[in-house]
Amino acid sequence: MSQSKEMAKELPEDVLVGRNAVLEALRSGRGINRLLVAKGDREGSIAEILALAKEKGIPVQMVERSKISSMAGDMRHQGVLAHVAPVAYAELEDILKRAEERGEQPLLLLLDELEDPHNLGALMRTADAMGVHGILMPKRRSVPLNATVAKTSAGAVEYVPVARIGNIAQTLKALKEKGFWVAGADMEGREPCYEANLTGPLVLVVGSEGKGMSRLTKESCDFLVRIPMAGKINSLNASVAGSILMYEAMKQRLKTE
Amino acid sequence: MSQSKEMAKELPEDVLVGRNAVLEALRSGRGINRLLVAKGDREGSIAEILALAKEKGIPVQMVERSKISSMAGDMRHQGVLAHVAPVAYAELEDILKRAEERGEQPLLLLLDELEDPHNLGALMRTADAMGVHGILMPKRRSVPLNATVAKTSAGAVEYVPVARIGNIAQTLKALKEKGFWVAGADMEGREPCYEANLTGPLVLVVGSEGKGMSRLTKESCDFLVRIPMAGKINSLNASVAGSILMYEAMKQRLKTE
Repeated sequence: MSQSKEMAKELPEDVLVGRNAVLEALRSGRGINRLLVAKGDREGSIAEILALAKEKGIPVQMVERSKISSMAGDMRHQGVLAHVAPVAYAELEDILKRAEERGEQPLLLLLDELEDPHNLGALMRTADAMGVHGILMPKRRSVPLNATVAKTSAGAVEYVPVARIGNIAQTLKALKEKGFWVAGADMEGREPCYEANLTGPLVLVVGSEGKGMSRLTKESCDFLVRIPMAGKINSLNASVAGSILMYEAMKQRLKTE
Repeated sequence: MSQSKEMAKELPEDVLVGRNAVLEALRSGRGINRLLVAKGDREGSIAEILALAKEKGIPVQMVERSKISSMAGDMRHQGVLAHVAPVAYAELEDILKRAEERGEQPLLLLLDELEDPHNLGALMRTADAMGVHGILMPKRRSVPLNATVAKTSAGAVEYVPVARIGNIAQTLKALKEKGFWVAGADMEGREPCYEANLTGPLVLVVGSEGKGMSRLTKESCDFLVRIPMAGKINSLNASVAGSILMYEAMKQRLKTE
């Protein structure tokens, strides 16, 4: 049993195989982006793995055993393979504590179903540069922290904590109760972002590449800000839009210090 | 001869083959990013093609005939293949006229040896949104306008003119004589970009992904601006850095209108 764990260490980045290795990763809270389980396997520790994955909101795919075998190479996978994050996910509380310890007004970035790992990497890089304390992403329908994100982030993945949240509306409600303002990026926003007040405890919300924020997320915002545009296309790359808002928030914070 | 031209139309995007087709493209000023010529071919119209390419500063690679054949598929290539831009390059004068016709203070973006087509595409998209009148790029050592750029630009390639320039220092000198200010993005810049005056006729200069601006380009700038940063990594993706500067310039222009 411990054999599968040791072998897993030799696998290519991002992948962990074997029942015990995966079970232990699940129990320890190590970031698992996705689980593959061989169809038909439901008995023994697999049942426990499936239950823990469900409890933690980790997407599970039931696939042919041969698919797992081809991904696991020579490793003994016992019908279980996990895609793990290059760094551990953080908890929202850790992120809030980080701002408090620095004596700074907390600044969070919430990404509503962002899909492109290059965009996430670029946003993490900007988040580091702009002093953002952490990034929040819903567990489902978001790009996971993977090797592409880590590479594009130019190292920022090590410094900017990412917390996965279950429900955007509930999380924003809880943050508002703690005194946060929630600003959503939206082309229909009333205020140009440079006229909005982006100081104080703030969550910046940026939507997905194609669709922007979901309706429910938009309704959870205290106010919507737009980046003024003057051209024919009038849409920005999601990482550019998020970066401009982080820049604007940081600038306002520097000016009010 | 006209046969090769007709066939060239059926080739995949970005590629033109045959002596007459390439010669005509060279004469008409259509954007050619790169020429491949079969080794040993120097006589007849090839000599004229090589002379015109040299005159226009288009990079030429002498390659094995078999390489051109494999890229040209069934087409009769006569030892010549051109990588063409999805849109025509503009002239600097067209870009200046564009600002004048709109009654706007000209705002140009100069990219010093940018290498990544995704960055160029994202910058074109932002340039469109921020009302930038045109982009200047040196002919050599820059990513060409190609299909990847066009796709990443989300259509902005059709609206933001790009002019290729021979020599950055000379071009900047000529623009300064016309009343332009030249602001270079540099981490060592004295002024935070939001304290610098980015109104009036302006060239924003952004360096390459790895190295930033070259020494000579930096010396051609009137002033250097930095984007304030607060993190551990303290470098931004080139398209994010350029986008933040364009945003800052546009905002200042909107406020002084």
